Amino acid sequence: MAQNARLRGPGILVFCVLMYPAMITAQQPALHLMPLPASAQSGAGSLEVDSSFSVAFVGHTEPRLERSGERFLLQLARQTGLALALKPAKTARATLVIQADHASKEIQEVGEDESYVLEVTATGAKLIAPTTLGAMHGLQTFLQLVDVSPGGFATPAVTIHDQPRFPWRGLMIDSARHFIPLDIIRRNIDGMEAVKMNVFHWHLSENQGFRVESKKFPKLHELGSDALYYTQDEIRDLIAYARDRGIRVVPEFDMPGHSTAWFVGHPELASGKGPYEIERKWGVFDPAMDPTNEKVYKFLDDLIGEMARIFPDHYFHIGGDEVNGKEWDANPKIQAFMKVQGIKNNEALQAYFSGRVQKLVTKHGKAVVGWDEVLVPGVPKDIVIQSWRGQASLAQAAKQGYRGILSNGYYLDLGWSAARHYAVDPMSGEAANLSAEEKQRILGGESCMWAEYVSPENVDSRIWPRNAAIAERLWSPQEVRDPASMYARLDFVSARLEWLGLTHRTASRHMLQRLAGSSSPVEFAALRTLADLIEPVKDYTRGQTAPAEPTNATPMNRVVDAVPLESDAGRRFNDMVDQFLAAACHDPAAEAGLRAQLTTWRDNDAILQPLAQRSFLVKEVAATSQDLSALGAAGLAALEAIAKGQPAPDAWKARHLAILEQVKKPKTQLLLIPAPAVQKLIEAATAGGTCSAAKP
Amino acid sequence: MAQNARLRGPGILVFCVLMYPAMITAQQPALHLMPLPASAQSGAGSLEVDSSFSVAFVGHTEPRLERSGERFLLQLARQTGLALALKPAKTARATLVIQADHASKEIQEVGEDESYVLEVTATGAKLIAPTTLGAMHGLQTFLQLVDVSPGGFATPAVTIHDQPRFPWRGLMIDSARHFIPLDIIRRNIDGMEAVKMNVFHWHLSENQGFRVESKKFPKLHELGSDALYYTQDEIRDLIAYARDRGIRVVPEFDMPGHSTAWFVGHPELASGKGPYEIERKWGVFDPAMDPTNEKVYKFLDDLIGEMARIFPDHYFHIGGDEVNGKEWDANPKIQAFMKVQGIKNNEALQAYFSGRVQKLVTKHGKAVVGWDEVLVPGVPKDIVIQSWRGQASLAQAAKQGYRGILSNGYYLDLGWSAARHYAVDPMSGEAANLSAEEKQRILGGESCMWAEYVSPENVDSRIWPRNAAIAERLWSPQEVRDPASMYARLDFVSARLEWLGLTHRTASRHMLQRLAGSSSPVEFAALRTLADLIEPVKDYTRGQTAPAEPTNATPMNRVVDAVPLESDAGRRFNDMVDQFLAAACHDPAAEAGLRAQLTTWRDNDAILQPLAQRSFLVKEVAATSQDLSALGAAGLAALEAIAKGQPAPDAWKARHLAILEQVKKPKTQLLLIPAPAVQKLIEAATAGGTCSAAKP
Repeated sequence: MAQNARLRGPGILVFCVLMYPAMITAQQPALHLMPLPASAQSGAGSLEVDSSFSVAFVGHTEPRLERSGERFLLQLARQTGLALALKPAKTARATLVIQADHASKEIQEVGEDESYVLEVTATGAKLIAPTTLGAMHGLQTFLQLVDVSPGGFATPAVTIHDQPRFPWRGLMIDSARHFIPLDIIRRNIDGMEAVKMNVFHWHLSENQGFRVESKKFPKLHELGSDALYYTQDEIRDLIAYARDRGIRVVPEFDMPGHSTAWFVGHPELASGKGPYEIERKWGVFDPAMDPTNEKVYKFLDDLIGEMARIFPDHYFHIGGDEVNGKEWDANPKIQAFMKVQGIKNNEALQAYFSGRVQKLVTKHGKAVVGWDEVLVPGVPKDIVIQSWRGQASLAQAAKQGYRGILSNGYYLDLGWSAARHYAVDPMSGEAANLSAEEKQRILGGESCMWAEYVSPENVDSRIWPRNAAIAERLWSPQEVRDPASMYARLDFVSARLEWLGLTHRTASRHMLQRLAGSSSPVEFAALRTLADLIEPVKDYTRGQTAPAEPTNATPMNRVVDAVPLESDAGRRFNDMVDQFLAAACHDPAAEAGLRAQLTTWRDNDAILQPLAQRSFLVKEVAATSQDLSALGAAGLAALEAIAKGQPAPDAWKARHLAILEQVKKPKTQLLLIPAPAVQKLIEAATAGGTCSAAKP
Repeated sequence: MAQNARLRGPGILVFCVLMYPAMITAQQPALHLMPLPASAQSGAGSLEVDSSFSVAFVGHTEPRLERSGERFLLQLARQTGLALALKPAKTARATLVIQADHASKEIQEVGEDESYVLEVTATGAKLIAPTTLGAMHGLQTFLQLVDVSPGGFATPAVTIHDQPRFPWRGLMIDSARHFIPLDIIRRNIDGMEAVKMNVFHWHLSENQGFRVESKKFPKLHELGSDALYYTQDEIRDLIAYARDRGIRVVPEFDMPGHSTAWFVGHPELASGKGPYEIERKWGVFDPAMDPTNEKVYKFLDDLIGEMARIFPDHYFHIGGDEVNGKEWDANPKIQAFMKVQGIKNNEALQAYFSGRVQKLVTKHGKAVVGWDEVLVPGVPKDIVIQSWRGQASLAQAAKQGYRGILSNGYYLDLGWSAARHYAVDPMSGEAANLSAEEKQRILGGESCMWAEYVSPENVDSRIWPRNAAIAERLWSPQEVRDPASMYARLDFVSARLEWLGLTHRTASRHMLQRLAGSSSPVEFAALRTLADLIEPVKDYTRGQTAPAEPTNATPMNRVVDAVPLESDAGRRFNDMVDQFLAAACHDPAAEAGLRAQLTTWRDNDAILQPLAQRSFLVKEVAATSQDLSALGAAGLAALEAIAKGQPAPDAWKARHLAILEQVKKPKTQLLLIPAPAVQKLIEAATAGGTCSAAKP
C-alpha cells in the first residue's frame, strides 16, 4: 500500500474536510459522485459532452483498457442518448485523453496502485493514472460527472486526485442458498465497477448447494446442486469479465461446516453416518467434515488443486464458520482421535482442521481467507480474517499480526438502512486505537448478500442502492460521513445504476404487479403508496417470525419480497417532519406537504381493501394498510392540534400514542416506516412539545 | 380457411354477441383475455395454480410443442413467483393436459388450423387442438387466465372454443431506418405470441440501410449498413425462434425505390449516375433501380435465390412503394427503352419491373407480397397485396381475385390511440360489401412499426401495448369492439407483457431519468406528472415540425421520445370528467378526484421550472408545463363555477376558452392530452351547459 501513503498526505486530508461541507449544499453545483474522491477542486465552466465526444489513449495501453474505453463510450451513449462513435479515437486531440503509465499486475493483487488524476476543463479532459486500474476507476468517475445542463450534456470543470482508503473493497454474493444466474452476477459486477469495488467474493458452497462443476469429483455438483451450478467455462468467463472491470474474484468453499450438499455425493467426507440430502431449510446444521479422516484431506487436496487452477486470485476462502460440533460429539472414532491427539474440544478440533486445510491451500500457491473462526494459534501470517464478529475481533487479529477485512455491519440481508451501514467504519471501536502499523493490516471490508430470502428476481434490490454507500465507506476518506450528502448522491447513483441493467428499482414494480393481478390502476396506485412506506423486518426477525418454516422452494412473491429494504418515501417524510419541527411548526409549505401526504395515507386503505379481498398476497398487508390509515389520521389530528396553538390534552396524547404503539408492531414481517415521524408530530403537539403553543 | 368456416357458425357468433357485454362489467369476474376468444362460457369455481402445477402432453407431440410447454411453465413461474417443476410431466394426471391431434405444417402456411378448445374446471384443465399451432395458442390463453385470487393463484373455470377470424395477423418492424438488435426483435416476437399474432414481417432494406448479410453480394451489407446488419446465422436462429412461437417470418426487400443503400456497393443497379451514399435523412428519395437493365434482373435473380434459401416462408415481400420516378425521367437510356417497348409512363415502367421481379420470386418457389403499387394488370393471382392505402383498395383487389392484408389504419408510428387502431376493421368500408367469396381473399392485416423516430431504446413502447389491440381486431370476432372493455384488458395485458422482457413501461422512466439528470425526487415526480399527460404529435407532424432536419444520427433522448404514444392518465381523466358530467355534476367522489388532479397540475409548474432551467431537455417542455398549470387552474375555475349553481358569465367562458385554445396548440411536438376534457368542464359550467345550474 505504498501508493496510498504517497498520495494521502495530511494536507490532502485537511483539504477534504474543508471541501465536503461545501459540496453538499443543495444550491451549489454539487458533484454527484459516489464514492466521493479523496480530493476534488472545482474549476471554471464545464466541458460540453455532445455527439462529437471522443476518447483516446496515450501512453501505456492494453486490450483490457481499450475494452474499458469502449464500454465507457457505450455507457456514455446510454446515459445521454447521444449517437457517439463507439470506438476510441486514434488522435490525442480527443475530448478525453487517457494516459496510463503502466500495466497493472497480470493477476490483480491486494494493494495495487488504483490512483488516478482527472482534470476536466472547459476545453477538454485528461485522465492520468500510474496503472490501468487507476485509469479504469477514473473513467467511472467521469461517467458520474456527466449530467444534463442548460446547454446540453456536460461535465463540470474539476480536478480530482483520487485513490482508495482501503485496498480490499468487496461484495460477497451467496449463490449457494439460492442459485443466482450468471447474467445477474455480471450486472452486479457492473454495479461494483461503477462504485469502485474491487473484490467479488463468491460464496459457492453451502448446506443447500454445491454450485461449481468439478471434473475431479463430478458427484459434488451433479448430486449437490439440483442441476443449478456454474460450469468451469462459465466461471472462467466470469473471472475474465470481472478482471476487465478491475475486480478480483475470491471463491469460497465453506468447510468443515455448511457443507451438507457435498455429502450427498460424498458421504465419506462427513462425520455422521449419512446418507445425506441437500438441505432445504435455513439455519446452522449438524453435518460437518470429519477432521480425523485422512481421506478428507486427500479429497480436499485434489479439489482445492482443481479449483485453484480455475480461480487465479491469490486468495482462497475456506469459510470455517458456524460448526455446531454435534456430529463430532456423536462420532466415537472422532472422540477417540481427539483423546489420542490431546485435542481438548471441538474448537481445537476445528483449529486442527483449519491448519491442515490452510497447508493444502498454501501447497496450491494460495493464501487463506476465512471467517473469524479460522484465526487459531499457529496459522501463518499471510491469512486474511473476514470478520462477521466486528471491529474488536479485527483489531485483536491486527495486534497479533494478522490482516483482516470487516463484514460485521455490512450484511445486506439484515435490511439495515444505507445510513446505518454507512456509519460502520472498519477503523472504529477498538480498531481506532491500533498503531499505524497495525492499522495497515485492516485491508477494508466486504458487504455480504446472504441469500436465504433472496431470489434471482429481487437480489438486485437487496444489494442496491445500499451497497453503494458501503462502497463509499471503503473508498472515500474517513471524514466523508454525512448521511444527508450520502443520500442525495445515492438517489442519483441509484438511477444511474439502472443503465447497467440492474433492476433494483424496476423489479419491485413488477413484483407488486404480480400480487395485484388484474387490479384497477387506482388500486395499484394505492398498493404502491403503501409499499413505498413499508420495509421488511430487520436482522433475523423474518426467519424467526415466519408463519411456516421457510425452505429454498418457498415462493418469494410476497409483499415482503417485493418492497425495497429501505423506504425512500419514509425517509423523506421523516425529513419533512424534522424540517417542520425545526421551524417550530411555522413552515406553511412543509405543513401543506405533510397534510397532503397524511390525507393520502388516511384515505388509502379504503381503496386498497377491495383488492386485498381479491388477492391473497395483498391480503397479507391488509392490517398494515389499516395501520397506514390510522397513521394518516393520527398525523392529521396532530397537525390540527398544533394549529390550535395550545397543548393537546393528556388524554388526546395517550390515545394517539396508543395508536402509534399498535402501528409500530411489525405485521406479516413488515414495518410501517413513518410511524416514528408521526409520533414526533403527536409529541410536538402536547404539553412541553416543540409546537404545543407555537401558533400565534 | 376451411377450419374457420367449420368452427365459426352463426350460432357461435350470436353467442359471442350475447356474451361480451357480460364479460366487461366491472363487478363480474371478467376474463382478462386479449385477444378475446371466439366464444367462452364460464363454469363453476376455479382451478388452483400452486407449486404442484404440472403440464402433460398426450396425443401428438413434437420438440416444438414440448419447448412451448417448457416456456409456458417458465412464464407461469415468472407470473406467479411459484417454484414450479419446469419440465412437462410424464403422467396424464397433470393439472393441464394438452392433446394436439396432428403436427402443423413443416413450414407454417397461411390458413393452417389454429383452433383450440380449452376447458378449465375446478379439478383440472384440458387443452385440445387439431394441431400444434392451436395448442400453442391455447397455452397463451391459459397464461392470461391465471390471476391472483383470495385463496392463491387460480384460473377461473371456463370453456373456450377459439380460432382466429383472420389467418394473417402480422407485425412489421422496420429495422432498416434504425437498426433494431436481435434481442429486441426476439422479445417483440414473444409479445406477438402472447397476443396470438402469427406473421413477423421484417422490413430489411431501405434507403438508410441494407440489413442482411449477403454472401453472394457482400458489398450490399458491408457498404450499405454502417456495420449494422444481421448475419445469415442470426436470421436462421430468429426464424427458428419465431417458428417455435407459431410465427411466420416474411422478409421484405423493398424495390425498385427505397433502395439507396443497395447502390452504395452496387451503383450499377441504379438509374442514376451515382456514386451513392447511405441516406441519412427521412422521406421519399430519387434513387431507384433501373428496370431497363438486364443486369439488374440477373442480380435480383441471384439475390432473391440466396434470400429464398434463408427464409423458408412461402411469401417474399418485394416492397414496391413510393417510387418518385425522377431518376427514370432523367435517364435517356430508360426513356429510349420505354419508347421502344411502348411503356407509356413511370407507373407502367414500375409494373414492368414488378412483373419481372415477380417471375423471379416465382422461379425461386415463392409468392410475392407487395404494397398496393405491385397490383398491376397481369400479375398472377397468388400475390398478396399489403394495403397502405385502405379498405377500398383492398376491396378492389379482392374483386379482381387478389388476396390482401390491411395496414392502413395500423401504422404504429403515427401515434394513434389504441382505440383508434382498434376501430379499424379490414372488412369495413367497401370491403363490407364484398361477396362471401371475395371476403375470403381478405386475409387479415399487419401493424407497421416504421422506424424514423424509433430507437432500440423506445421501440417497445412504440409497439406496445397498442399492438395488442390490433392483434385482437385481427383474431377476435368482428363484434368484439367495445373500447372500454379493450382498455380494461389492455392495462392487464400490458403489465403481463413486461414479464416477457418487453420494456414499453420501464424504458420511459429510464429516459425521463436521463433528461432529469440529478434532479431532486420531487422535481422528478413533477416531470413524471407532466410526462404522463402528454403525447407526441400525431401522423407525420413530427417530421414536418422538426426544428432541424432530423437524420438517423439525431439523438432520440427528448421528452417526445420518452413519453408513451398514448397517455393513460389523460384517458382516465377524460373518463372521470365524463362520469362527472353524466351525473349532471352530482358526483362528489368524481368531483373530489378531479379537484385533486387539477390542483396537482396547477401547482406542478412551480416545481418543474427550476429543473427546466437546469436541463436543456426539460426546458423543451417548459411551455407545456406552464400550459398544464393553466389547464389545472382553468379546470378548478370550472369546478368553482359549477359549484355556484348558476351559469358562468359569457366573458368568463370566452376567457377560459381562449386559454384552452392556447393550451391545445402543440408545442415542441407535444400535445397536452387532458385539454379537451377540461374544455368540457368549462362548457358544462356555462349557459346551456350540463351543469350550469345543477347544484341545488
